[in-house]
Amino acid sequence: MRSLIIGRFQPFHKGHAELVKYAVKKYEEIIVVIGSAYDSYTLKNPFTGGERYLMIRRTMEEMGIEKYYIVPVPDINRYGVYASHVSDLSPEFDVVLSNNPVIKEIFEKDGFKVESTPLFEREKYSGTEIRRRMAEGEGWEELVPAAVVDTIEEIGGEERVRKLNKAL
Amino acid sequence: MRSLIIGRFQPFHKGHAELVKYAVKKYEEIIVVIGSAYDSYTLKNPFTGGERYLMIRRTMEEMGIEKYYIVPVPDINRYGVYASHVSDLSPEFDVVLSNNPVIKEIFEKDGFKVESTPLFEREKYSGTEIRRRMAEGEGWEELVPAAVVDTIEEIGGEERVRKLNKAL
Amino acid sequence: MRSLIIGRFQPFHKGHAELVKYAVKKYEEIIVVIGSAYDSYTLKNPFTGGERYLMIRRTMEEMGIEKYYIVPVPDINRYGVYASHVSDLSPEFDVVLSNNPVIKEIFEKDGFKVESTPLFEREKYSGTEIRRRMAEGEGWEELVPAAVVDTIEEIGGEERVRKLNKAL
Amino acid sequence: MRSLIIGRFQPFHKGHAELVKYAVKKYEEIIVVIGSAYDSYTLKNPFTGGERYLMIRRTMEEMGIEKYYIVPVPDINRYGVYASHVSDLSPEFDVVLSNNPVIKEIFEKDGFKVESTPLFEREKYSGTEIRRRMAEGEGWEELVPAAVVDTIEEIGGEERVRKLNKAL
Amino acid sequence: MRSLIIGRFQPFHKGHAELVKYAVKKYEEIIVVIGSAYDSYTLKNPFTGGERYLMIRRTMEEMGIEKYYIVPVPDINRYGVYASHVSDLSPEFDVVLSNNPVIKEIFEKDGFKVESTPLFEREKYSGTEIRRRMAEGEGWEELVPAAVVDTIEEIGGEERVRKLNKAL
Amino acid sequence: MRSLIIGRFQPFHKGHAELVKYAVKKYEEIIVVIGSAYDSYTLKNPFTGGERYLMIRRTMEEMGIEKYYIVPVPDINRYGVYASHVSDLSPEFDVVLSNNPVIKEIFEKDGFKVESTPLFEREKYSGTEIRRRMAEGEGWEELVPAAVVDTIEEIGGEERVRKLNKAL
Repeated sequence: MRSLIIGRFQPFHKGHAELVKYAVKKYEEIIVVIGSAYDSYTLKNPFTGGERYLMIRRTMEEMGIEKYYIVPVPDINRYGVYASHVSDLSPEFDVVLSNNPVIKEIFEKDGFKVESTPLFEREKYSGTEIRRRMAEGEGWEELVPAAVVDTIEEIGGEERVRKLNKAL
Repeated sequence: MRSLIIGRFQPFHKGHAELVKYAVKKYEEIIVVIGSAYDSYTLKNPFTGGERYLMIRRTMEEMGIEKYYIVPVPDINRYGVYASHVSDLSPEFDVVLSNNPVIKEIFEKDGFKVESTPLFEREKYSGTEIRRRMAEGEGWEELVPAAVVDTIEEIGGEERVRKLNKAL
Repeated sequence: MRSLIIGRFQPFHKGHAELVKYAVKKYEEIIVVIGSAYDSYTLKNPFTGGERYLMIRRTMEEMGIEKYYIVPVPDINRYGVYASHVSDLSPEFDVVLSNNPVIKEIFEKDGFKVESTPLFEREKYSGTEIRRRMAEGEGWEELVPAAVVDTIEEIGGEERVRKLNKAL
Repeated sequence: MRSLIIGRFQPFHKGHAELVKYAVKKYEEIIVVIGSAYDSYTLKNPFTGGERYLMIRRTMEEMGIEKYYIVPVPDINRYGVYASHVSDLSPEFDVVLSNNPVIKEIFEKDGFKVESTPLFEREKYSGTEIRRRMAEGEGWEELVPAAVVDTIEEIGGEERVRKLNKAL
Repeated sequence: MRSLIIGRFQPFHKGHAELVKYAVKKYEEIIVVIGSAYDSYTLKNPFTGGERYLMIRRTMEEMGIEKYYIVPVPDINRYGVYASHVSDLSPEFDVVLSNNPVIKEIFEKDGFKVESTPLFEREKYSGTEIRRRMAEGEGWEELVPAAVVDTIEEIGGEERVRKLNKAL
Repeated sequence: MRSLIIGRFQPFHKGHAELVKYAVKKYEEIIVVIGSAYDSYTLKNPFTGGERYLMIRRTMEEMGIEKYYIVPVPDINRYGVYASHVSDLSPEFDVVLSNNPVIKEIFEKDGFKVESTPLFEREKYSGTEIRRRMAEGEGWEELVPAAVVDTIEEIGGEERVRKLNKAL
């Protein structure tokens, strides 16, 4: 079976990695939808769709996971059509894994199965917290997989977030 | 190094497969950009972005290629910005492989390197010809990788093309 | 039960009127989707969404039909999402009435029921033919309901088509 | 004469109903523009364009009003062109009824007549208040027409708002 | 008084220049709207909005005209709203100068004054003909102002058109 | 050489005028990009793209500057592609003048040169402050060039801002 998860992955962190492991164990194949794929260079969404693709791809290799699909999906700002938008761009899937009530509502109304997942230390692994640490020069590396640390270094990601923070 | 190819892949055929093999041999990693990712259910673009993703992913496995990235990219109908649009959604790349003069022009003007490729029996392996055969009930299977035959069967692709053909 | 029909209605003609009568007889309530609602002032789509709304509304009154819904729907140029787009803007419906194989494909793939209809003198009642007659100053009035004749006169529709024809 | 009112109608409430009665008494025909027609499944805009269409249609019947037009209009996020956008999708109108200074400005600059209206217990009949009550499980039914209560029940609207509220 | 002309100016040629001279003589100030401003790198629209801006700006200097405004305007593919779209982006104007019946229709319906102009050797000065000559390596320079010849040379315009021509 | 500055210019004030003088002294030619060109009739963006064009054009004349280009640029809400979007619509430029870290980041990543500028009494000359004064009926005229005072009077700009302020 094939499951699907959706996130902005700004950046992809260890909580996401745990969710992926949980999903592949339970459903074998996983589709990772990179939401808000067009957004980048803001404090909330510092990394481009392509950079996030790279982070996730390398983390998959690092974790030894092979049955995955990475699908960047631009926003359409229209929840009533969003499930159809995702399913149009993605390989077919059997279940959406999400604890977000909006995602649940809008996929279920179109006949998709949505399933809750365990929480993986959500207060610890948080994109908001990671970006705050980057902005303020605190250590953030422990919160993301090693492959993500490498990618962020490669693209000068920490410095970018610090500069974007000054723009406020 | 990482190369990038762009196509609509309606469907992904043996000519595309040859190009991929050529590219990974020469540059190790390859990014496959699925162009016109939002287009589907027309005679010219019968398959969805997600379906084409699946075709390509499975063909990669079939060919034993591992260093690939599949990136669906919607049209923006604006050539002057297209190179930037692709590079925003895609992992960084060193060279674009294309024989299309427009692609060459619009990527080179933004500072990207574009390189021509050998032609892989272009008159034989052609999306237009494959879709024509599907529409008219002729054999098309020999023109695409086995994994693509399977995927098209799985989604009822041949029947879809035949129905779309009647709509004209 | 509630049925749904889709057309551009450039203009709404007697063939459309017959289809509406057939639909309300069989399913009681009818939703009339004005497709390509943003298109106007071209030879193919001379009338605005608002003008077409008026034509249809008045014809419904003329026919004594009460259980109808008129819903203008802009194009999104993406068949994979079109059924979701329509169902988002329209009251819920039980069946789509259409002989168009594309409409059939894209609504059925999203789980909607699509049903063929009898043809109502299709070669006689045709938007293309009506617009051609308008452009060339031939009589077209017999092909549309009286309420549509009135509306087109009110908005100077015939003269508009003639002028648009000169622009070619 | 024909008047036009614009609202998001999330949901259509008794204040809106009073305004409609006032308008048809003064100007005979009324166009009800459903603004932000693409927005739904958020706390501020929980109901789809189609669901709101149904609420209004049924309330019209409940009130015995016949000379009305319901026109869903998507946002274009550009006030300078909004009046033209509305008038393109709507049957022609003689006057816009609105107390909103922005609506007044942007329609008057394009030559449309805009007229203020009496207020119909605005502090009591408020979409924000109704959605707050739904979210918190308080009684909201007295604030909307009976036909709207029915429609919201039919679509599970109250539960939807409660779930969306949890997503914050 | 201020007049407005609209063109794609692919490229700006001597016929356009004559029209500008006529307009400033009759109405003093002129607004030059660069239509389809987002289109470029196609055979029909080879030059970017910015490149066309430069051609026109330099020709104005060459002609010693000072009272002009150059306004690039993207397409919105919706004639019903186009006049409003242009007037939103442009300084206020008193009259549109155009022989195009569609332009005449869509601006007049919104209350703008549209006036026909003399034709300036239309069969001789034609964008289509100039682009054809560029594509086929024939002399085209005599058909455009000297400032446009310079600009096209500066940007490698002729070579670009030749390459785009090979892409067909 | 040619420099480029970007602003919303709501309205164009004396701080902007000083920056222009600085730029033409240092780089001879200047491109003034009117950002958010589609936005108007809100408190934050009260003036249309066309009105702002007029303000800037007249101030240039007032300052006796001749080597300038005014280019209205709509938002695309996508920083990753914004530099390409601007450079597509604008004549070629050698340097972007900006103290905004985001502008610096997104132009530099595409290979453009970005340079900081002196600040011209930024706390005094501020669009926000000018719009606040307009909204509350305080004197704002001393903060903008005389040509801008005239333009705002001509279009009834102060009254517009006061009305928009009441809409909150």
